[in-house]
Amino acid sequence: MSDWQVIEGGVTAPKGFKSSGITAGLKASNNPDLALIWSETEAIAAGVFTTSCVRAACVDYCRQRLQKKASAKAILCNAGQANAATGEQGWEDVYTSAKTLSQVLSIDPDSILLASTGVIGQRIKMDKLVSAIPELVSELSDTGGEATAKAIVTTDLVTKSIALETMIDDRPVRIGGVAKGSGMIHPNMATMLSFITCDAAVSTSLWQEMLKTAADKSFNQITVDGDTSTNDTLIALANGQSRTPAITTMDANGQKLEAMLTQVCQYLAKAIARDGEGATCLVEVEVEGAIDDKSANTIAKTIVGSSLVKSAVFGRDPNWGRIAGAAGRAGVKFDQEDLRIQLGDFLLMERGQPRQFDRQEASNYLKKASEGEYLKEDTVKIVISVGNGSGKGKAWGCDLSYDYVKINAEYTT
Amino acid sequence: MSDWQVIEGGVTAPKGFKSSGITAGLKASNNPDLALIWSETEAIAAGVFTTSCVRAACVDYCRQRLQKKASAKAILCNAGQANAATGEQGWEDVYTSAKTLSQVLSIDPDSILLASTGVIGQRIKMDKLVSAIPELVSELSDTGGEATAKAIVTTDLVTKSIALETMIDDRPVRIGGVAKGSGMIHPNMATMLSFITCDAAVSTSLWQEMLKTAADKSFNQITVDGDTSTNDTLIALANGQSRTPAITTMDANGQKLEAMLTQVCQYLAKAIARDGEGATCLVEVEVEGAIDDKSANTIAKTIVGSSLVKSAVFGRDPNWGRIAGAAGRAGVKFDQEDLRIQLGDFLLMERGQPRQFDRQEASNYLKKASEGEYLKEDTVKIVISVGNGSGKGKAWGCDLSYDYVKINAEYTT
Repeated sequence: MSDWQVIEGGVTAPKGFKSSGITAGLKASNNPDLALIWSETEAIAAGVFTTSCVRAACVDYCRQRLQKKASAKAILCNAGQANAATGEQGWEDVYTSAKTLSQVLSIDPDSILLASTGVIGQRIKMDKLVSAIPELVSELSDTGGEATAKAIVTTDLVTKSIALETMIDDRPVRIGGVAKGSGMIHPNMATMLSFITCDAAVSTSLWQEMLKTAADKSFNQITVDGDTSTNDTLIALANGQSRTPAITTMDANGQKLEAMLTQVCQYLAKAIARDGEGATCLVEVEVEGAIDDKSANTIAKTIVGSSLVKSAVFGRDPNWGRIAGAAGRAGVKFDQEDLRIQLGDFLLMERGQPRQFDRQEASNYLKKASEGEYLKEDTVKIVISVGNGSGKGKAWGCDLSYDYVKINAEYTT
Repeated sequence: MSDWQVIEGGVTAPKGFKSSGITAGLKASNNPDLALIWSETEAIAAGVFTTSCVRAACVDYCRQRLQKKASAKAILCNAGQANAATGEQGWEDVYTSAKTLSQVLSIDPDSILLASTGVIGQRIKMDKLVSAIPELVSELSDTGGEATAKAIVTTDLVTKSIALETMIDDRPVRIGGVAKGSGMIHPNMATMLSFITCDAAVSTSLWQEMLKTAADKSFNQITVDGDTSTNDTLIALANGQSRTPAITTMDANGQKLEAMLTQVCQYLAKAIARDGEGATCLVEVEVEGAIDDKSANTIAKTIVGSSLVKSAVFGRDPNWGRIAGAAGRAGVKFDQEDLRIQLGDFLLMERGQPRQFDRQEASNYLKKASEGEYLKEDTVKIVISVGNGSGKGKAWGCDLSYDYVKINAEYTT
């Protein structure tokens, strides 16, 4: 099923999408801070949002809009102010933003979705945003993917963007994606944002279902510091411009599209985990043999989120005890006699008991990952088995270094 | 109800209890490493144990023993080897330990409970333990509380011990307690252990119930790094030697005893949180206005366990955004418009929106706590309200410092 290839262009790789990213003056740094993703035709829209009780106005706005109408033509995203904990005024700013953009684009305000990232408790600098919208629209381009990727970041060290292409009924279908997030690096600069574009024709309900599945296997399986943001948003548009037959069931084409969507989400999710503050490597935990996938995912995420496991990876310490301890407390029942732990090629534990292994070589394995090429050889792989079940899952995170504490302790609001 | 006073003696303060602690040679450091708590008469015994699937042999042993017979005369505890992930051999070592001690004490082996702390995956040095038991028994003393406290620690910086006394029907009733734990400071040196002694006469089922309630309000509400151990054990003995009337219902006397037991457990739990690796202060989070106590406890524990909140406290940064963010993601529904956050005397947020406050003074408050006297003025207090419900709860933790990462990363097994 993985007969796709990586192509250029990010969110503008799929047919019928343009995007832009400009400096509106929202960030103090004068870096790009306003982005627009636009579809020529009204696109099917699906969204997954933060589950937090403390949410930004734009999150509630998008959720309500998508319940009313599961389609959109544009996504407007600002970086600099999160517009969370801003009360009634925050709502008004969302409406004003949508209305202003709708006038310039000459479209229904209800066809616009919004996302914000930046400092919690701060209103968007509306005068700057409003006056920048004409330029933002005029900059729309079918090669605007990278400009968009740059304009949505806050404290990310790298931009995060990808596009994949596959063939459906002998015609190319593409999915593009962009994301931002690197843990809550600055105190109030929260947020994981990701926007997906796709030119396949797919039914609304199936697209929402696919996005939920893909999110559960990607963004919901990464953890940098366990803290979820007030603004987390994942929006996926599908505009049908590939002119391929409509996908309405999970047939071969449906499975192919979902697999490719999952791949895009996993790439972006891993890019965020790798960009975790202070991280020196990506950590991937794979769990097999659980009762079901959900149990496996829970164990995987508990291990990858354990401060002790993360510290051990940073310390290049092949510490099976911490991995076993984290697996045990994940809240999923298993027989400890079935526990098997592998780190790279090193078998650390089998049938619940420690094995002899070359500690120095295992430590070197951890060291090598921290020196490996970004998102290529920089991955520490931990594989554990907890029984004979068919459930399996993966989760991604990063190590815990001095820099994490430094970044998070020394910034004073 | 809090008409108790602090008295000397720790676990030997209650009538009819003796204890000892000696160096058996289990630890490489040659520090005390073997402890015994002994009741003159068979005592009612209740226990609360780790919920981890990866458990030490002694944990399963105690749980099974207490299901069979809810009483005991002695608790044997070794420090140095955790006897977890040691398979069948681990079980045999537990039986041998109980049998050897039972012979020297001339009691039924089933009247002995056991606990271990130390390196996971290592068997207890049985030759040393067995040959040290006669000395351990001969050292039993009614002033042995501190010796016991010293012999159960691993990487703790301080010993943890307390005793309280109250009057029930004009006669003194005492509860003593000892604990060890400071987060999983060394890679495999896990474990929170606590042993409680009491000379009240109380029914078996009520004592177990009281211990569960007390544990939920204390040990289960502390978090140092979110990692639960393979060996966590809380055992409480009540031997009736106060000669007070038997407490069989939650009448006034029952409530008094439970409150005092909770107080002992909270003191010990706070001592463990304060001794968290690298900690410079204790953090107490109080949540009010929740739907029920369970919801309040969940929110409190999520906040106190947030790496971002912990880093902010270490950085002396009065960062309400991180507190609000952690509250929001706790998995408990509340209306963000109801959120109120107070740090010491500083009101940081009200009705879901930030308030003006003196940031420098609030930062000084955090700084002062880190310089305050141990377990007295060294507490950072965060009080949040999430609505008008009657549910309330507290949780305790510590800040996250460079030393946490240093301790956990630089130790190589």
